Amino acid sequence: MTDPTSTSAHERTVQLDKAHVFHSWSAQAALNPFVVAGGAGCRVWDYDGRSYLDFSSQLVNTNIGHQHPAVIDAIAAQAQVLTTIAPATANLARGEAAKRIVDRAPEGFNKVFFTNGGADANENAMRLARLHTGRDTVLSTYRSYHGNTGSAIVATGDWRRIPNEYARGHAHFFGPFAYRSEFWATTPEQESERALHHLERVIQSEGAESIAAVLLETVPGTAGVLIPPPGYLAGVRALCDRYGIMLIFDEVMCGFGRTGSWFAFENYDVVPDLITFAKGVNSGYVPTGGVIISDAIASDFDTKVFPGGLTYSGHPLAMASIVAALDAMENDGIVENAARIGRDVLAPGLAALAEKHPIIGEVRGIGVFWALDLVSDPETREPVSAAVMGRIKSELMARNLLPFLSENRIHVVPPCIVTDAEVAEALAIYDEVLSLDLL
Amino acid sequence: MTDPTSTSAHERTVQLDKAHVFHSWSAQAALNPFVVAGGAGCRVWDYDGRSYLDFSSQLVNTNIGHQHPAVIDAIAAQAQVLTTIAPATANLARGEAAKRIVDRAPEGFNKVFFTNGGADANENAMRLARLHTGRDTVLSTYRSYHGNTGSAIVATGDWRRIPNEYARGHAHFFGPFAYRSEFWATTPEQESERALHHLERVIQSEGAESIAAVLLETVPGTAGVLIPPPGYLAGVRALCDRYGIMLIFDEVMCGFGRTGSWFAFENYDVVPDLITFAKGVNSGYVPTGGVIISDAIASDFDTKVFPGGLTYSGHPLAMASIVAALDAMENDGIVENAARIGRDVLAPGLAALAEKHPIIGEVRGIGVFWALDLVSDPETREPVSAAVMGRIKSELMARNLLPFLSENRIHVVPPCIVTDAEVAEALAIYDEVLSLDLL
Ligand SMILES: Cc1ncc(COP(=O)(O)O)c(C=O)c1O
Ligand SMILES: Cc1ncc(COP(=O)(O)O)c(C=O)c1O
Repeated sequence: MTDPTSTSAHERTVQLDKAHVFHSWSAQAALNPFVVAGGAGCRVWDYDGRSYLDFSSQLVNTNIGHQHPAVIDAIAAQAQVLTTIAPATANLARGEAAKRIVDRAPEGFNKVFFTNGGADANENAMRLARLHTGRDTVLSTYRSYHGNTGSAIVATGDWRRIPNEYARGHAHFFGPFAYRSEFWATTPEQESERALHHLERVIQSEGAESIAAVLLETVPGTAGVLIPPPGYLAGVRALCDRYGIMLIFDEVMCGFGRTGSWFAFENYDVVPDLITFAKGVNSGYVPTGGVIISDAIASDFDTKVFPGGLTYSGHPLAMASIVAALDAMENDGIVENAARIGRDVLAPGLAALAEKHPIIGEVRGIGVFWALDLVSDPETREPVSAAVMGRIKSELMARNLLPFLSENRIHVVPPCIVTDAEVAEALAIYDEVLSLDLL
Repeated sequence: MTDPTSTSAHERTVQLDKAHVFHSWSAQAALNPFVVAGGAGCRVWDYDGRSYLDFSSQLVNTNIGHQHPAVIDAIAAQAQVLTTIAPATANLARGEAAKRIVDRAPEGFNKVFFTNGGADANENAMRLARLHTGRDTVLSTYRSYHGNTGSAIVATGDWRRIPNEYARGHAHFFGPFAYRSEFWATTPEQESERALHHLERVIQSEGAESIAAVLLETVPGTAGVLIPPPGYLAGVRALCDRYGIMLIFDEVMCGFGRTGSWFAFENYDVVPDLITFAKGVNSGYVPTGGVIISDAIASDFDTKVFPGGLTYSGHPLAMASIVAALDAMENDGIVENAARIGRDVLAPGLAALAEKHPIIGEVRGIGVFWALDLVSDPETREPVSAAVMGRIKSELMARNLLPFLSENRIHVVPPCIVTDAEVAEALAIYDEVLSLDLL
């Protein structure tokens, strides 16, 4: 491999990327990807040694920051012992990882099914809910992202396809979003009530007895950090109970520290039936994810075969990185830091920015999980254009801040280890850029 | 974490596994998984220091064996530099991995889309074929396994669902299998002709203009190492060309050395439109997989957005392990070894076993990819019972051989690095166990 410290490493990276790498969710020809040479903590740098403050956490996954030494060491140590082993075996790292996860989950959650990422975590949660209820349909919101898979088990010809052929029913509904209400609501409380009314009407209209699960990001992330209004999640829980529907919380993005608690649902005092995770569980240091399964559902499969699986379920290297990452989060007080930063630093800091810049239509968030909803007109709440967002991106990068932008929003999503000083640095950069003549 | 060298590590592994790990494709209560403490080359061992000859390659993935030092070192080295980075960036390890893969692919394949494993590799190949052709249906065989996903993109509510809603059409057909013909054929040539006739009739009956792709394991693996009969794959290629259908070869299990060549299709002189891979590309040391995309398909997405993606696409740690694994395979002559072992050692050795033991109905294979099809009656070819297979499993394990068993078959699938002496050792163990009074 080319010496990665040489200045030509940059050129070789660009050349190989252009020639051979097919990128996610993109048209390929015009791509000009940011070349990353390395990283540590809340910073990444390029081959010229120019360093950027990472307020994206990449895809909102590096909750412990880049290159946490304890986790790096754990990966190297596990690599020396056993990198890979089939899921049908038993493996100490896997058991230790599962234990650390269920120790943080609510009472009555004791089993973990491991996957490679978030999409297959949700796949398997839906499979479990469908098999548990004997129903087909899964409801989820329009403003959601749950992963990119959808056909491999259908393509499969052998017996493993057959118990999965329910995987057809799906319907979407609107979740609450007070700032851009679908329900003509004028207060968060009203938004919550009306969104619950809407969900119940969808359940009744689809036929309650056909619905296996409601799948919800506890705090919808990519859709804009949509903090659930008061009573909404508890109301969904009650509807699920009323109609015998499983409640799945997708904690892929919002779990493991992002909201300042281990799980986002702890903030809302609601317990689901299945919890999916990925990203923050090990900050993505090794691809992994999974489902935490409540006892009522897990016990269905004591004697019945669970018809799901994957080659790398409970991969030792991934498992060792989970153990080390969760221990580091515990030992370093990383979740507490996220909570404190959110409450004491980001909340007032972003509120002050919004006060100053009318382009910020709304600030929403919790922990280290925030969004600035940018508008060209505060009255109509018209989102700013893609051109404005492009300009904002390059102005932030020019000031050495790596942002997370989605539609008309800046997501303020640093690692959970972010310091007061780093937040101050980022706030100053956002302030400077939002002070430009953007519209 | 418990000291993994202590004898109590075994007990802790069992206890944690039982309490917290939910296993793939299993009823959970009766599981008694084999506890693996470590491995090297073609062996794994337990905490008592008892070592087993691994003739399973786990899930047929450890093509370079366990713990290849060059790959371990590369993982540790990359971990020191950068473990994780978002797919939208450019990264040297990713470019180097993609280059090494396309360098081994046929002319006209220049781009790689990376995934986390085999299921999502197939997901994205089907997506590409559907978008390229504008057609819905994918055909695959009943005797196949392509992965366990199937619903996450349908659950997704945001725009990424919409271009993926084609993911509904699927139909299955029978591939050729001369030993257990669905076509009343008496020779492999006749099986091939009739299987092609059947496929063409399915294409016509489903409506050729609706079919996006034929998805085939080049050599179906889990289904029993079904070596395609003469002319079959070329015939499928011709049918695909005639009807404007994309041909996807799933090389997840059979690719990267397993058949004694880099890709299994090289043995049959047929080039597909899309190639999926996982397992052997890095022996599963870090979860990864992907699609190698022909230029005709890749260029569709120069200016059109590719509507697929995942957080860990092109994960640096996985990419570094691909680079090191492929370099090791090249430097150590591992693919050539697999070819030689298959031709000179396994082929004659397994033929001799079959000669001696009437329970072996058929021996099929190539490279280090073989199956013994066990029958209770050579005339009727009645498969042996699950009880017989259970007995075989424990007798093989009792003799320190870790087998791969599927239905009524022993799959003889050692790492590609297997030596003549290790094959001799395994053959002697199979011989001894098949000499028992099993029926
Ligand atoms: C809430 C949520 N669920 C699922 C996923 C899918 O995860 P992955 O990309 O690992 O498949 C994501 C990814 O961003 C996500 O944010
Ligand atoms: C041919 C084939 N395709 C796809 C897969 C699925 O791969 P994964 O388990 O990594 O999702 C497998 C797994 O055994 C396979 O053998």
